[in-house]
Amino acid sequence: MANHQNSANGWSKPSDQRTTGKVITCKAAVVWGPGQPFVMEQVQVDPPQKLEVRIKILFTSICHTDLSAWQGQNEAQRAFPRILGHEASGIVESVGDGVKDMKEGDRVIPIFNGECGDCKCCKSEKTNICQNFGVNPFKKVMNNDGTSRFSTKDGKPIYHFLNTSTFSEYTVLESACVVKIDPEAPLKKMTMLSCGVSTGVGAAWNTANVQAASTVAIFGLGSVGLAVAEGARARGASKIIGVDINPNKFIKGQAVGVTDFINPSEPGKPLHERIREITDGGVDYSFECIGNLDVLREAFLSTHEGWGFTVVLGIHPTPKMLPLHPMELFHGRGIIGSVFGGFKGKSQLPHFAQECMHGVVDLDKFITHELPFEKINDAFQLLIEGKSLRCVLQL
Amino acid sequence: MANHQNSANGWSKPSDQRTTGKVITCKAAVVWGPGQPFVMEQVQVDPPQKLEVRIKILFTSICHTDLSAWQGQNEAQRAFPRILGHEASGIVESVGDGVKDMKEGDRVIPIFNGECGDCKCCKSEKTNICQNFGVNPFKKVMNNDGTSRFSTKDGKPIYHFLNTSTFSEYTVLESACVVKIDPEAPLKKMTMLSCGVSTGVGAAWNTANVQAASTVAIFGLGSVGLAVAEGARARGASKIIGVDINPNKFIKGQAVGVTDFINPSEPGKPLHERIREITDGGVDYSFECIGNLDVLREAFLSTHEGWGFTVVLGIHPTPKMLPLHPMELFHGRGIIGSVFGGFKGKSQLPHFAQECMHGVVDLDKFITHELPFEKINDAFQLLIEGKSLRCVLQL
Repeated sequence: MANHQNSANGWSKPSDQRTTGKVITCKAAVVWGPGQPFVMEQVQVDPPQKLEVRIKILFTSICHTDLSAWQGQNEAQRAFPRILGHEASGIVESVGDGVKDMKEGDRVIPIFNGECGDCKCCKSEKTNICQNFGVNPFKKVMNNDGTSRFSTKDGKPIYHFLNTSTFSEYTVLESACVVKIDPEAPLKKMTMLSCGVSTGVGAAWNTANVQAASTVAIFGLGSVGLAVAEGARARGASKIIGVDINPNKFIKGQAVGVTDFINPSEPGKPLHERIREITDGGVDYSFECIGNLDVLREAFLSTHEGWGFTVVLGIHPTPKMLPLHPMELFHGRGIIGSVFGGFKGKSQLPHFAQECMHGVVDLDKFITHELPFEKINDAFQLLIEGKSLRCVLQL
Repeated sequence: MANHQNSANGWSKPSDQRTTGKVITCKAAVVWGPGQPFVMEQVQVDPPQKLEVRIKILFTSICHTDLSAWQGQNEAQRAFPRILGHEASGIVESVGDGVKDMKEGDRVIPIFNGECGDCKCCKSEKTNICQNFGVNPFKKVMNNDGTSRFSTKDGKPIYHFLNTSTFSEYTVLESACVVKIDPEAPLKKMTMLSCGVSTGVGAAWNTANVQAASTVAIFGLGSVGLAVAEGARARGASKIIGVDINPNKFIKGQAVGVTDFINPSEPGKPLHERIREITDGGVDYSFECIGNLDVLREAFLSTHEGWGFTVVLGIHPTPKMLPLHPMELFHGRGIIGSVFGGFKGKSQLPHFAQECMHGVVDLDKFITHELPFEKINDAFQLLIEGKSLRCVLQL
């Protein structure tokens, strides 16, 4: 017990209870087919292999990417049975050979967009897309041996998801996809950094590099869109226009710095004309956080000619191409995609986590609901109905 | 005569021969309908109005934009009779009220993409697209009074083209579209700066900001593409890949620094795969100088994931949209259009002209043919047949 109390986080165990090197049997929310309810199952979690880490998830939340994977929207990306979930926080249970930057008991957050540190992209300052462990919706097994670390009690493999699979009491990740954070960091809040808040704030800070006194339009005020607003507010944007068909989102928006609201359901001129009118020709930056091509076009046209910059954050499952004519690029408007807000996870997230601890970004605003892990189906329903921003599940 | 000899350029005239304030009757190459031969006509050129400049054209050359306007490829942009031409050099004959930065006798080059200096865009460092005199293929009359300064002998108006109309011994332009250059500048060469070379070199320098030791792919080795190569070479790019179906262009390419050639007509893997293979994953920058959507897609895919940057220079007359999927933006490749190479004409071209006089960029390489003005139809034929880069017509 002395050992237990001396540890930073209460995670060290007497040696006879140690799970290192052993298969762990624990609870996970397994999906057996597209849209089928999550089933709480006893699953087996193998020990981490070389350069892998096994972590105990303490909190996980739900993002739209989980929702679309659960519904199996993209047929090519379907893989069942599967353990979804990618936004979480936890504690290292054990590490595989070669892992130098983490040890048992460290507080960590998983990242779906890893950082190996060795590839040409990781060595470049220009991108956060790792060639080895970058976000990959088709990946369902570990890189080391092409197999899963999860199985049912009778040995049937259960697939991984987005480098993370956090809807489980224990999960195994490549160490490139695990970020060690301040041991004093409040883990429940830190869950927000695993995806949504980092994606939105980073899109404003890193991808768009929003400047003080600039103007911003955000299409879609879900967690990511609101996090963009939070990031733009922190940078001193003078006007932050929020666009959403759900008027309830406007109240949330005001709390994160949205200054003007437009509900596209209300009759009127096309969105981009309305936005150009109230911004003397268009915003400096627009952010598409929905994944709808018509909205993307409006976002593009809402920016000022000459320098307007559109950041695409929404996931577009349609096979349709960009609804932009090449000659429209000659008006000086730019467009770019943003993955994980341009953050290099392992290099930059620890600092961002500390900034959040110091209040630069208020993570509490994004947690609207909390439920026990077992209520995961209810949590998904809240997201589907647009009632929650983030519902945190406690494991 | 003393007065004549003392002038910088031999343009001052005895007062009884002065044309200031008078209509000038002179020779122009007029197009009466799409694709109809240029007809040398005596036309009348009105004096410049407020903030306008009348210049005597000494040299003009021919660009693909003249070709497509002559052919009337875009129906909405057709306007006949018309005086085409936008790449030229000349001498100020007279200036209208309010013109402070130029006077009779100054050596100048016309710019199709003007710079008023007063609008929101001109005041921004982020763009060279002037809100008042930016390139506008639909414009056919002067801003001041909505009429033309050109007419036939019997008073029928002849339309302007691209802010310039240089296929005439005299033309009238808004002063925002006239750049005064060094009085020592060799005017024949300076013609190249009026469009093609500035567009290509500027795309490399200003739009892409090509870095030393970087890799570049250029799709289409016409004058603009070769000027991109010249600009990339001047910046110290380590590999400059030229792509063209015309093997004759490869010889020209070598002269401006192209290091590798790919002829897409030769059988093999898709272009982007070949380019990725020889550049360890893709080039840093690609330039589309043709105006073909399939080529544009190859150019986009030829760049390195994470930071690859495609600059669109080709004019795309088709109504078809960009053949890029929004999710492809998430691979970290960017795409942007470049107008006049990102140069702010009046602010930046005088310095660029001096750089060219000092050999930073060799303009001679771009002049492959010279003909008298009267041979304009032959000059167009040379361009159509891919035999010329620039054919300079002497007036």
